[in-house]
Amino acid sequence: MNSQQGLGGFSPQSLKALSAIVGQGFCRSQPIDLELYSYDSSPFIHYPSVVVIPGCVEEMAAVVSLCRRHGWPLTCRGAGTSLSGGAVANRGGVLMSTARVNRLVEMDLLEETVLVECGLVNLELQKALAPFGYMFPPDPASQKASTLGGNIAENAGGIKGVKYGITKHHVLGLELILDDGTLVRTGALKKGFEFNSPDLTGIFLASEGTLALVARALLKITPLPKSYKTVSVVFDSLLKSGQAVSAIIAEGIIPTALEIMDRRLIAALEDYLRLGFPAGAEAMLLIELDGLGPELDSQLAKIKDICFGSGAASLEEAETPEDREKLWLARRSGNGALGRIKPSTIVQDVTVPIVHLSKMLSLVQEVADRHGVIIVQMAHAGDGNLHPHLLFDPADGQEYLRCLKASAEIFAAALKVGGTITGEHGIGLEKVTFMTDEFTVAELDFMASIKSGLDPTGIFNPDKILPQKWQPHRTAKHG
Amino acid sequence: MNSQQGLGGFSPQSLKALSAIVGQGFCRSQPIDLELYSYDSSPFIHYPSVVVIPGCVEEMAAVVSLCRRHGWPLTCRGAGTSLSGGAVANRGGVLMSTARVNRLVEMDLLEETVLVECGLVNLELQKALAPFGYMFPPDPASQKASTLGGNIAENAGGIKGVKYGITKHHVLGLELILDDGTLVRTGALKKGFEFNSPDLTGIFLASEGTLALVARALLKITPLPKSYKTVSVVFDSLLKSGQAVSAIIAEGIIPTALEIMDRRLIAALEDYLRLGFPAGAEAMLLIELDGLGPELDSQLAKIKDICFGSGAASLEEAETPEDREKLWLARRSGNGALGRIKPSTIVQDVTVPIVHLSKMLSLVQEVADRHGVIIVQMAHAGDGNLHPHLLFDPADGQEYLRCLKASAEIFAAALKVGGTITGEHGIGLEKVTFMTDEFTVAELDFMASIKSGLDPTGIFNPDKILPQKWQPHRTAKHG
Repeated sequence: MNSQQGLGGFSPQSLKALSAIVGQGFCRSQPIDLELYSYDSSPFIHYPSVVVIPGCVEEMAAVVSLCRRHGWPLTCRGAGTSLSGGAVANRGGVLMSTARVNRLVEMDLLEETVLVECGLVNLELQKALAPFGYMFPPDPASQKASTLGGNIAENAGGIKGVKYGITKHHVLGLELILDDGTLVRTGALKKGFEFNSPDLTGIFLASEGTLALVARALLKITPLPKSYKTVSVVFDSLLKSGQAVSAIIAEGIIPTALEIMDRRLIAALEDYLRLGFPAGAEAMLLIELDGLGPELDSQLAKIKDICFGSGAASLEEAETPEDREKLWLARRSGNGALGRIKPSTIVQDVTVPIVHLSKMLSLVQEVADRHGVIIVQMAHAGDGNLHPHLLFDPADGQEYLRCLKASAEIFAAALKVGGTITGEHGIGLEKVTFMTDEFTVAELDFMASIKSGLDPTGIFNPDKILPQKWQPHRTAKHG
Repeated sequence: MNSQQGLGGFSPQSLKALSAIVGQGFCRSQPIDLELYSYDSSPFIHYPSVVVIPGCVEEMAAVVSLCRRHGWPLTCRGAGTSLSGGAVANRGGVLMSTARVNRLVEMDLLEETVLVECGLVNLELQKALAPFGYMFPPDPASQKASTLGGNIAENAGGIKGVKYGITKHHVLGLELILDDGTLVRTGALKKGFEFNSPDLTGIFLASEGTLALVARALLKITPLPKSYKTVSVVFDSLLKSGQAVSAIIAEGIIPTALEIMDRRLIAALEDYLRLGFPAGAEAMLLIELDGLGPELDSQLAKIKDICFGSGAASLEEAETPEDREKLWLARRSGNGALGRIKPSTIVQDVTVPIVHLSKMLSLVQEVADRHGVIIVQMAHAGDGNLHPHLLFDPADGQEYLRCLKASAEIFAAALKVGGTITGEHGIGLEKVTFMTDEFTVAELDFMASIKSGLDPTGIFNPDKILPQKWQPHRTAKHG
């Protein structure tokens, strides 16, 4: 650090150059600004050197270009809801918020597409579509805050994944900002690409901002279902509820949503929301079907048979839209409710083949018992995506460490049954060291070769996804 | 060339090293061998330095690794049916045939998948699947000879593309040989990749052997249709037949196949096969529907209405399977029949949005008239993929040049209406110089950056797809 350099290693000239792009009010480097942008929804905290909040795609591109010229690390951030540390600037440098690049640019109901900017919040899109009878199916639990750019970067799933697929199934094309600030279009945004070119869109889904930045996206929208059936099913054991899920999927029924909640979650939700959940329930399934209407009754009848055949204690159908809303409000309030037990949570995110769901639920419970930590289980059960919530008190360092050890065992267990260490929350910083458990050296080399082609100097979200050995070395110095 | 070096700049030591991998009989460098592998189905002729025919994936990988170490250009070849020069070794070096790596490794009827090696011929797969009631939908006209590895590298389409999509829609995962000989798996072949990782499969579809080699592929198979309806419709003008196609698609009917043939092709086929096609027909549509049965009659009735509404002169339905076979034999015999008019053909391959189909058919005819060349028109009309056949006599250099000029005008016309210069035959050598017409410098830089990441020394099929300026420079010398 020389005398020219300000906080975080950035010189006044550097800050001036950034301000010139985004405007003075949107280039911030006061301690309070850096503090505000030092964390996301993971336990990681790192201070950026400077925060910029561009007002349009062109300003974003100009910032990227400047970062590349100076070799500044650049972390792009949507709403900061990352659970794996994807949105923290762990090497300092520039933290770029997309909060102002948030327009719904175009809605084409004939083609059933929308063109959106990266910073548009998922729920805002849903609200804009609903009056026209449409939805964007991916609906991560964070949808009130999380942005579509973030959803794409993490390849978010959500509750409807079992029927409608995850984000990647609804992205038709991207406008990308490459490391030198160039804008390019892929997929249906570039007509010529559509017919026979390689698919240049797919590698950016789940790339966590490490290859290029998503500026705009052309998304496929889906008509809202005509009708729903929503039921809650109570079991006297978590294992039985998992078996019911596997049996429903094996029967060929594709519910819109198929969620598992364990006893601790049910109790916490009841304590928090007073919804009238049965006391002493060991597990609950939340099942929703959607469709045109007439076919739902026969599907629901089958589901009832399967649930009672698997030992369900009771089943209740939501009779009114309000009943239905109440059930989903409960599911979406999990994080808030758990705050009443412990102040902090590590939300885990492993996915296993559906036949191993019950086994995995039991294994997680064993891990909790062995390490003496509280793990509350909920899962997008229909597609095998488990979200064990590991509760801890940040003031208790030992408890946090026990949670990390328990997490590592959960990863190992998921891999053992042919699963993966991330379903939809990404690798980020959190799981970097576990990448070598899931992938071979050759596979990591392969991913690194794509990274080195697109971001040879390594400015984009350094240290995320790929372990240190596979990270490119930046050629220029800060500031 | 020093005294150590043999034909094509390869030293005896180099040949010995290659022989050690594939076995002496399968490493060939006699003039007759090099001549045999100097051409594909395009007009391009280039001699490789050496031809190797590995017996398994591991031998393929060892050859790749050796090429990388020595900086030898490597062109991988399936059956040599490329129409754009994709399978000729235009910089010499190693020509690797996949003819012996051709096993159908596994057929899983429960999951509806097959695992194949790259050299398996498309039609051989169809023959293996048919007894079980399955097909692999992509069926390029070359299917008797062309390999699945080649189909993937070119992202082949075929007659059924309008209903079933093209190759990329049926590839679930790949096993790839990277430039250093490493094997990696993508998509469903690598379980962990399935859930949330970037899609690492898509960029290899249509990559023409320039990024990595496809060793094995996991393909989705599809049940054979239960029944067919096949009709031929005669028109007194090509324009009217094109309008009928647009109208059928606009009506929302998705035929399995929807092919246009012009007057010259009809006459040539009649002359060749004596099928009883009406003399003087200006254009013919070949339309096939498939499905479960009952719904086909109403669809066919609509098609009849549309065709006669567009001015069809007559319509004939294939009454027996033999009648149907006869019609498809005709369509597949186009190239052979045209050999009776001129000895050689450039088969063009542009795709345009379906609304511009008629206009494009007329434009191609104008181009033919203006340049004084014979262009026979046939098209996978249902998905807007035109295959104008430009006929020439190789002994007449002027005529060949006129064909090239006519081709260039056809490309320009396709781009003008929002189309693309290749539908399914690839860029290869043929269209490299036209890439800058379809893509911006930024887009070509973007593709080059992926190439440079995966193949930094540029051994894989050099000079294909990307214009010279975007080609990586090889670091080592031949031999």
